[in-house]
Amino acid sequence: MVGAGQLARMTCQAAIGLGIRFRVLADSALDSAAQVCAEVRVGNYTSLPELLAFAAECDVVTFDHEHVPGQHLAALEGAVAVRPGPAALRYTQNKLAMRERLARLGVPCPRYTPVSGLDGVKAFADDAGWPVVLKAVSGGYDGRGVWVCETPGAAAEVLAHGVAMIAEEHVAFDRELAVLVARSPHGQAAAYPVVQTVQRDGICHEVLAPAPSLAAVRSHEAHRLTLGLAAQLDVTGLLAVELFETPRGLLVNELAMRPHNSGHWTIEGATTSQFEQHLRAVLDLPLGAPSAVAPQVVMANVFGGTDSGVYARYLHVMAADPGVKIHMYGKAVRPGRKIGHVTVLGNDVGELRARAVRAARYLTAGKE
Amino acid sequence: MVGAGQLARMTCQAAIGLGIRFRVLADSALDSAAQVCAEVRVGNYTSLPELLAFAAECDVVTFDHEHVPGQHLAALEGAVAVRPGPAALRYTQNKLAMRERLARLGVPCPRYTPVSGLDGVKAFADDAGWPVVLKAVSGGYDGRGVWVCETPGAAAEVLAHGVAMIAEEHVAFDRELAVLVARSPHGQAAAYPVVQTVQRDGICHEVLAPAPSLAAVRSHEAHRLTLGLAAQLDVTGLLAVELFETPRGLLVNELAMRPHNSGHWTIEGATTSQFEQHLRAVLDLPLGAPSAVAPQVVMANVFGGTDSGVYARYLHVMAADPGVKIHMYGKAVRPGRKIGHVTVLGNDVGELRARAVRAARYLTAGKE
Repeated sequence: MVGAGQLARMTCQAAIGLGIRFRVLADSALDSAAQVCAEVRVGNYTSLPELLAFAAECDVVTFDHEHVPGQHLAALEGAVAVRPGPAALRYTQNKLAMRERLARLGVPCPRYTPVSGLDGVKAFADDAGWPVVLKAVSGGYDGRGVWVCETPGAAAEVLAHGVAMIAEEHVAFDRELAVLVARSPHGQAAAYPVVQTVQRDGICHEVLAPAPSLAAVRSHEAHRLTLGLAAQLDVTGLLAVELFETPRGLLVNELAMRPHNSGHWTIEGATTSQFEQHLRAVLDLPLGAPSAVAPQVVMANVFGGTDSGVYARYLHVMAADPGVKIHMYGKAVRPGRKIGHVTVLGNDVGELRARAVRAARYLTAGKE
Repeated sequence: MVGAGQLARMTCQAAIGLGIRFRVLADSALDSAAQVCAEVRVGNYTSLPELLAFAAECDVVTFDHEHVPGQHLAALEGAVAVRPGPAALRYTQNKLAMRERLARLGVPCPRYTPVSGLDGVKAFADDAGWPVVLKAVSGGYDGRGVWVCETPGAAAEVLAHGVAMIAEEHVAFDRELAVLVARSPHGQAAAYPVVQTVQRDGICHEVLAPAPSLAAVRSHEAHRLTLGLAAQLDVTGLLAVELFETPRGLLVNELAMRPHNSGHWTIEGATTSQFEQHLRAVLDLPLGAPSAVAPQVVMANVFGGTDSGVYARYLHVMAADPGVKIHMYGKAVRPGRKIGHVTVLGNDVGELRARAVRAARYLTAGKE
């Protein structure tokens, strides 16, 4: 796995169970997964020679993130099985290409347009209204790639950074959903229950699995859309699709082709975790059952606070709720940084949310 | 953790989730846990200097097996927290001491006596009948410590090895049960549901959790007995008690103070796995909920067969049953060697046993 963040860390746990040798290419020996993997290479994923040296030690290469340059992915493909492949990954690396492809496939999306300057944004807003969402076509700046602009002035500030952008309508959604499917090279696919993601300022705080009170017809629509996309884009491994649920139906917000925050609940909450499923898919093994093992599962992300000690707070969290499952990523604590997650299983979504949020807040401590 | 077998390997997975740094002292870099742990020291657990060097890197030392010499454990205790401590571990290292202590505590056990020669065995059998079970007081020979002797001639062969022995009655049990509890230094304890173990030739093949149709009074008796023992022996970490269920009640067969084969079902089948629970107990963290997450769980051990390739058979096992959970230990395949286990969750014990055994046999291949 190229990249050694928390996704690689949790994939490592799944690989141990399956008895599959798992190596990571880490930026640093202190990376989340590098701390716990037995086989770590420290190297730069933007360097083709370093990628090739890593690939020489692997049967299959997969990814913890979407930042490996497309031309390197193509070169890697000559040396090793790359899953998902560059042709699929392109749609996670270039938002304009993604929107254009989805539009051609007839997949419902927010209105969008590529913009090269403020005039384009204003023209788009004349039709779609303010606020306008600006998204970097790839990358971004200051660690961000999405900006909700309330006014032309705010849009001008974002555009001033000279990064290629698309403008998207600001969708008045009822809630945000996510669908996770796995697909193998031989074409087998499996879909997890549709979940609701609870976001604040564009950051996922909670995942409710399954999405409470979701109409069966919406769930089927979400599965059909995502399974169709996985096949049409020839995804191998996981495909996560973030959706807006709106009065006019579902709209695709974002795609990812790797284990996804919206699927962390599957570690305890599904027969096959997303991490095991990703391994099975990229290794072309038969997929595991994606069914939930409890009527309701809630996952809450843990963010760093101003108090850097986390371990000392285990006493409180564990004593307060012996049923909460803690996952810490070994990451240095910084305010607002995602450093872990907690999961609870049960029946009542309200009770589970209260428990998960309480545990996550205990672990944060201080101000986020 | 001293020792790097499959118990350490599965403890390593739990430590990753909790974000706890986990080191193993391995006999070899090829040991089951040494293959997957990020922090491995290769050393000899019978050497005090090597144990002390390992302990210097740890806050708490615990064990994958009971083979560290007692005097070394006592010396280690001066340097680091040793959990369980030597006073408790003695009862897993010396079967005569265990029987004597249990007798003093009034815990029901099979009749037993220390024996120094064939006359003693014969005298014991006059009362208890044949067959007689001979058990090495500690260790044994040829990798075994228990012999069921049908005749005086068979007993004489065992005694000829000159190992200190106790004789025990051969209990006519209805079935074998096991109870697993965790206990912390501060005295908190948690008991898992009582399970049935299905053994052949003294080797555990299946675990049924909970034990089907167990009378509530028996379950309470088993829990009371095991929780009492954990406190009386001052166990820290896990205590597994193997029991015979007989018409005259429960009898204690064996004790272990570490994660135990009879508790592997807890990885998927309980809110808190035995491996996470052992870590929480030895680190004096509040214990996790030991409750089952499904009405019935079945675990089947996977033994090596004559065909050494295991991975190639994943295709069959996974395709045949997408709900089976596979755990392989990375151990070289030898006929009869325990190399992994499988777990299935559901409602009907008969169906689950069939599925678990089928998956385990697929993975074995060839003759056990």
